[in-house]
Amino acid sequence: MAYFPNVEKVRYAGPDSDSPLAFRHYEADRLVMGKPMREHLRMAVCYWHTFVWPGSDVFGQGTFQRPWQAAGSPLEQARAKAAAAFEFFSKLGVDYYCFHDTDVAPEGANFTEYRENFARLVDELERHQSESGLKLLWGTANCFSHPRYAAGAASNPDPEVFACAATQVCTAMNATHRLGGDNYVLWGGREGYETLLNTDLKREREQLGRFMRMVVEHKHRIGFQGDLLIEPKPQEPTKHQYDYDVATVFGFLQQFGLEKEIKVNIEANHATLAGHSFQHEIASAVALGVFGSIDANRGDPQNGWDTDQFPNSVEEMTLAIYEILKGGGFTRGGFNFDAKVRRQSLDDVDLFHGHVAAMDTLALSLERAAALLQDDPLGKFKSERYAGWDQSLGQRILGGQLSLEQLAEHTFSQGLAPQPVSGRQEMLEGVVNRYLYR
Amino acid sequence: MAYFPNVEKVRYAGPDSDSPLAFRHYEADRLVMGKPMREHLRMAVCYWHTFVWPGSDVFGQGTFQRPWQAAGSPLEQARAKAAAAFEFFSKLGVDYYCFHDTDVAPEGANFTEYRENFARLVDELERHQSESGLKLLWGTANCFSHPRYAAGAASNPDPEVFACAATQVCTAMNATHRLGGDNYVLWGGREGYETLLNTDLKREREQLGRFMRMVVEHKHRIGFQGDLLIEPKPQEPTKHQYDYDVATVFGFLQQFGLEKEIKVNIEANHATLAGHSFQHEIASAVALGVFGSIDANRGDPQNGWDTDQFPNSVEEMTLAIYEILKGGGFTRGGFNFDAKVRRQSLDDVDLFHGHVAAMDTLALSLERAAALLQDDPLGKFKSERYAGWDQSLGQRILGGQLSLEQLAEHTFSQGLAPQPVSGRQEMLEGVVNRYLYR
Amino acid sequence: MAYFPNVEKVRYAGPDSDSPLAFRHYEADRLVMGKPMREHLRMAVCYWHTFVWPGSDVFGQGTFQRPWQAAGSPLEQARAKAAAAFEFFSKLGVDYYCFHDTDVAPEGANFTEYRENFARLVDELERHQSESGLKLLWGTANCFSHPRYAAGAASNPDPEVFACAATQVCTAMNATHRLGGDNYVLWGGREGYETLLNTDLKREREQLGRFMRMVVEHKHRIGFQGDLLIEPKPQEPTKHQYDYDVATVFGFLQQFGLEKEIKVNIEANHATLAGHSFQHEIASAVALGVFGSIDANRGDPQNGWDTDQFPNSVEEMTLAIYEILKGGGFTRGGFNFDAKVRRQSLDDVDLFHGHVAAMDTLALSLERAAALLQDDPLGKFKSERYAGWDQSLGQRILGGQLSLEQLAEHTFSQGLAPQPVSGRQEMLEGVVNRYLYR
Amino acid sequence: MAYFPNVEKVRYAGPDSDSPLAFRHYEADRLVMGKPMREHLRMAVCYWHTFVWPGSDVFGQGTFQRPWQAAGSPLEQARAKAAAAFEFFSKLGVDYYCFHDTDVAPEGANFTEYRENFARLVDELERHQSESGLKLLWGTANCFSHPRYAAGAASNPDPEVFACAATQVCTAMNATHRLGGDNYVLWGGREGYETLLNTDLKREREQLGRFMRMVVEHKHRIGFQGDLLIEPKPQEPTKHQYDYDVATVFGFLQQFGLEKEIKVNIEANHATLAGHSFQHEIASAVALGVFGSIDANRGDPQNGWDTDQFPNSVEEMTLAIYEILKGGGFTRGGFNFDAKVRRQSLDDVDLFHGHVAAMDTLALSLERAAALLQDDPLGKFKSERYAGWDQSLGQRILGGQLSLEQLAEHTFSQGLAPQPVSGRQEMLEGVVNRYLYR
Repeated sequence: MAYFPNVEKVRYAGPDSDSPLAFRHYEADRLVMGKPMREHLRMAVCYWHTFVWPGSDVFGQGTFQRPWQAAGSPLEQARAKAAAAFEFFSKLGVDYYCFHDTDVAPEGANFTEYRENFARLVDELERHQSESGLKLLWGTANCFSHPRYAAGAASNPDPEVFACAATQVCTAMNATHRLGGDNYVLWGGREGYETLLNTDLKREREQLGRFMRMVVEHKHRIGFQGDLLIEPKPQEPTKHQYDYDVATVFGFLQQFGLEKEIKVNIEANHATLAGHSFQHEIASAVALGVFGSIDANRGDPQNGWDTDQFPNSVEEMTLAIYEILKGGGFTRGGFNFDAKVRRQSLDDVDLFHGHVAAMDTLALSLERAAALLQDDPLGKFKSERYAGWDQSLGQRILGGQLSLEQLAEHTFSQGLAPQPVSGRQEMLEGVVNRYLYR
Repeated sequence: MAYFPNVEKVRYAGPDSDSPLAFRHYEADRLVMGKPMREHLRMAVCYWHTFVWPGSDVFGQGTFQRPWQAAGSPLEQARAKAAAAFEFFSKLGVDYYCFHDTDVAPEGANFTEYRENFARLVDELERHQSESGLKLLWGTANCFSHPRYAAGAASNPDPEVFACAATQVCTAMNATHRLGGDNYVLWGGREGYETLLNTDLKREREQLGRFMRMVVEHKHRIGFQGDLLIEPKPQEPTKHQYDYDVATVFGFLQQFGLEKEIKVNIEANHATLAGHSFQHEIASAVALGVFGSIDANRGDPQNGWDTDQFPNSVEEMTLAIYEILKGGGFTRGGFNFDAKVRRQSLDDVDLFHGHVAAMDTLALSLERAAALLQDDPLGKFKSERYAGWDQSLGQRILGGQLSLEQLAEHTFSQGLAPQPVSGRQEMLEGVVNRYLYR
Repeated sequence: MAYFPNVEKVRYAGPDSDSPLAFRHYEADRLVMGKPMREHLRMAVCYWHTFVWPGSDVFGQGTFQRPWQAAGSPLEQARAKAAAAFEFFSKLGVDYYCFHDTDVAPEGANFTEYRENFARLVDELERHQSESGLKLLWGTANCFSHPRYAAGAASNPDPEVFACAATQVCTAMNATHRLGGDNYVLWGGREGYETLLNTDLKREREQLGRFMRMVVEHKHRIGFQGDLLIEPKPQEPTKHQYDYDVATVFGFLQQFGLEKEIKVNIEANHATLAGHSFQHEIASAVALGVFGSIDANRGDPQNGWDTDQFPNSVEEMTLAIYEILKGGGFTRGGFNFDAKVRRQSLDDVDLFHGHVAAMDTLALSLERAAALLQDDPLGKFKSERYAGWDQSLGQRILGGQLSLEQLAEHTFSQGLAPQPVSGRQEMLEGVVNRYLYR
Repeated sequence: MAYFPNVEKVRYAGPDSDSPLAFRHYEADRLVMGKPMREHLRMAVCYWHTFVWPGSDVFGQGTFQRPWQAAGSPLEQARAKAAAAFEFFSKLGVDYYCFHDTDVAPEGANFTEYRENFARLVDELERHQSESGLKLLWGTANCFSHPRYAAGAASNPDPEVFACAATQVCTAMNATHRLGGDNYVLWGGREGYETLLNTDLKREREQLGRFMRMVVEHKHRIGFQGDLLIEPKPQEPTKHQYDYDVATVFGFLQQFGLEKEIKVNIEANHATLAGHSFQHEIASAVALGVFGSIDANRGDPQNGWDTDQFPNSVEEMTLAIYEILKGGGFTRGGFNFDAKVRRQSLDDVDLFHGHVAAMDTLALSLERAAALLQDDPLGKFKSERYAGWDQSLGQRILGGQLSLEQLAEHTFSQGLAPQPVSGRQEMLEGVVNRYLYR
């Protein structure tokens, strides 16, 4: 317990507390709809933004001076980082964490070193997990930072690069399996293109399809019981990323017969970059049967890149959680804070500020969403609105008993002239605010 | 020949002409790659923007004073409009046109009147076609303007509205069939939502799936040989439209088993509103096997709505046509000018200015694209770039002969360390400019 | 009292009420920081969206069937509209309203008829004001809908169109003066361009400068005591509007020596369309000394046009009101609901739903902002953050006592090496949530 | 001549050449409108993207392996970089270059080392300039990368950071002066904010105003004859940058009485990120009398961040150069290629590909723009369009001889009813294409 010496374990202090290092809403074991908050939310801290990123951006050097990134060999630094991370997780009181292979261990000079380094750190993580009770929400492989992936990983024009990606994913899946991870995530950061002038869209798509098939087969071969998740993102770093959004991933999965095998990990900021609301992406995934997990963060509505800010809008998050609860809640997924403190938030304690406020945002949103779900005025309104589809004409249409022509005949003969009905959007917005601000 | 008395038939006058009412590049029968320009481009004028729209916008009244919209009964006006339209088509020298049911005939007070009015005007159109030799590129039904469709057509919460939409589509398909149309288009202008608070995404998607299935069945029942096309658009008028982009439509078609039955009609401005380049949407549709037809226009990069301007960028259009030609060219599709003159371009002659400049843009782009395709430096570059996939390792991967684990073993044992290779984007951009500006 | 027979006067029913036709937060006379809510907020209903707009959009016909737009001569309809409007204002319980000249009276066939019609309706409005106690927040002239303004009003290439705009503005200013309006607003809906190919930017800017100068002179000539306000908007209907945002208007006002004479009316949706947060535009106007009034609404973050939705975000509005209160609150300005119910919200009662929910949003936001201001943790944080500027070095710099060279010398000689300090963004976001959700 | 051993001096080879390492359009001494191309364009290579940037992005490590960034002390590397840069400039055949202080010399451990290192490299640059005949288009100081500037440079809450910025700017201005630079540029990369929660907009603006005043005074004190230029950018790295766009900078300059002292350096990609066309920003700057210089590049219309791609659109650049020529051409400014090869373009030769294609794009655009200017159909059209303003009514209005009321009286008494006139946008777009594609 050496890296955050001035921070105590974060405790619930009630809504009147004005401490930025106490929870005002998150009480891990408080029951909401009969289930503890912690089990509803399944919150995870991510390794990369919190323990690896130095506070750099495209226009400037790192501003952070993390003690665990100070002197020592790469392996020693990796061990220090793991110790700092688990101290942080424990003090914060989350139950889960997430990592990329290259976050936790040095890459080394070649794949043999990579394998060795990673194996050592997986031992270390296993020990930390066992000592702390923390669990792994998901593991993943970083197949986008190394220069070899500049032109793609599975979608690279060079099959040897595909082999390298397979190597990392295989290794990271095995590690995730061993560490009891609940999911394995694939984010195709370089699976896209910079220009169509040098890109064969169709080939690359097929390579990607083959890769995903191999991943599914490997999962079954090793007996991994977790979920496989693709994380959609529309662009950045590439000009166009193949896993653009939930609907695009759904089409891709179907094309390669994978729609029963792979689900999606939805990131709020990726949703908004793709031109959708976060709520939309969740509702779509639920409707399409591919909802898996969430990367909780937010973008800046005025900035056109992935800002990965900590979620702080209860208004937005309540509607997101409402959709998740309506869909049955998480099974293996959870809320991973794929969020980074601003470059100016350079003190170690700012990592706590960001996470504590975000956890409170989720906890409060969960409460509001649960209240909204209890009476479910939205659900009732919808049931009435679509009631006609549960009656004769609607059922015959959906049941395939009427052809286009027969339906036209019905319209002519009955002189149909249906009147539009108010959608009551403003009233419903008022209803939602009633549950948000009580 | 009364509506455009001061405009002669537009003729090819060669690149040195400075007349805005002559073609500098479009010579209908000139062979490009062995095929006349007119058969490559299959250009069509749209009825709605050119003959129906009065020059109004959200903030202002119509500015146009079209003689064919002057006094007379609605039916007389419709006949005048048809006469003006065919005079325009003929003087312009396009081979095709496109319409919505409600563009060509008055809706009437009820569906019986609608059917009668439309039937009369279809007779009229048939006569005009026969006299002029013009052909119908596609027909469609307007299921978005009438108040009954405010909450959707096929996706409406009221099945009677679904029935109304079926009635219009059935009638319009029959008309398209009778007029020898090459395609039938479905644009779901209201098939989306304003707010998720009152919307059941899953239900609406299923209604839409059922509707499309009925349309396919009707096509086969009446023996229509043309293509069925869905036109993607991300939003506007709705907040979110279900047929967001090509990839989304592809996912939808697969879900309902329609991917062999329905293709896409890609609009340039819809592509850019969806966050894609026009070229991307075409390349995607070709790669997914659903490329059908094009709505030729452009948006304004600084404006976030559908401006439907006339295409004028040879740079953009050359790459678009390059993709189309690479994909084998149009079969039944073509270039429909879904474009409107600006509200300030209020003279009837401006309709000619817009179309003539756009046709020249397409003709010139076709020439440039054909030149680019002849040597095909881009194609050659790509072949070399992906050459590894045609060799042993690539073939074994794609052929499914290697598992993830085997590939990892291969990487370790061979000590793979592939070096990144330049993608030469800047060089290729220079190459393209070489073909654009000769 | 005939137009909304089924709606009673909206009353405060407390936070537990679940009626969409009662206030849960807005209590007009409740004191907040020593001032009644109504005087803080000075809320106004706009005539155009609420009583004039028929529920049409670019892709569809009107869906509303307003009794005051039913049969009768244009003048009779205008009187009915005024009666309906004042019944609505009174039942809603706002203190103010706003209008364009052409909202309240028929334009007539020429300017003489325009003047007469408008004069009659101003009489009518005066009578309604006197009977109801309602006041006019601001008047304005519609110089953007008529075809004559297609290419601009004051910025039109034709000086006669400038004269027409002058005529309307003169008439509307006189009417506003007579009706005791608190402000006069100028929104330059067509003061911009569609294409630079036909536009002389410099000329048009000078015409606009001259126009604004004439407006200022007229104000003084007639003794109007209210404020003159320009309403910025970046584009739509034009491609580019000269009054792009607050900063642009500020530059324009300075160029023509008007920065002491004209302030800004900031619309939330225009702010976001311009790439700014609503809060930013308010803070900028306050900092530049040109803050005037607010058009309260919101855009849709996923749609690139002016959706003019009712404000419903307490999170956003609290920060906006915080800035306003910090700046001293409104003097003559207020919150005008420049918002329209969705096209699907077609019942007359939806007008109440929209306004009631929005008024509650503002009332609650006012309370939260006042609480945030009382302790003012944000203000305190800022004071400490910039404290160095109140000390010696900072004061000498700002006082002009150090040249660039002297400051460099100081840096070298003192060996300055200032350390970056955390900006504490995440902590502050948590603080704000503490005040929002108590 | 050791760094690009395989590249010869780039020569003009005429339009039929298919070498990516020869000019097809740029012939430095060819006269266009009586002036050599080189003097029209005054092209410069930038140090930072071309010789400093390692090919990294937010999601990945550098991909470039530049020989001049290989082993050696920082000072040795800096010298190697300068040698490579001048070899590159000379082989490319540009006449100018641009740099930041920290591009050319190591920052050192403190400001004293900074001063020494920089002085040594300025000697080196002077020698290279003298040997090669190359000139400095502009110098600038990097006041955004170092952690001390995380919260701003001149707008920092800490006046000591202001002093550091003053130190760098003073030093860089002196160096620019000594090297005979034609301009000195200020880009406020961190002069903005991340959140208003911790930011005092007004204070920061005043600090910035004071800073600019000091810069102006220093210019006069040292007798620098070049222009001072602010480079606008709307955001990135900050959420909001104070120098948002040309209009915003103009307002700022006026507020601090600097509009005669400072002009703007307009970057294409910054223009588009601010919601404007590149042409718009140039036309605005010319109209406001603050046009200075250009950073030539382009963004990606689908990506919301600064991609700094090489300009390749003759269509866009011709209109940009048309505006510049209309404004009288460059005086001290020029075209600086603030552009970087893609991360995948990892060979040293790609630096040539990017610049050669871009220089050809400018040369061809210059030719097209000159042709467009010769007959000037656009200028003629505008003159006729605004002709009314040169006649009686227009002149009396602009001359201030008519009050608002008098103008209204004129309208009533004359029965003014001006008819809208076509803006001919489509025809003019056709005209432009006629000059682009001859």
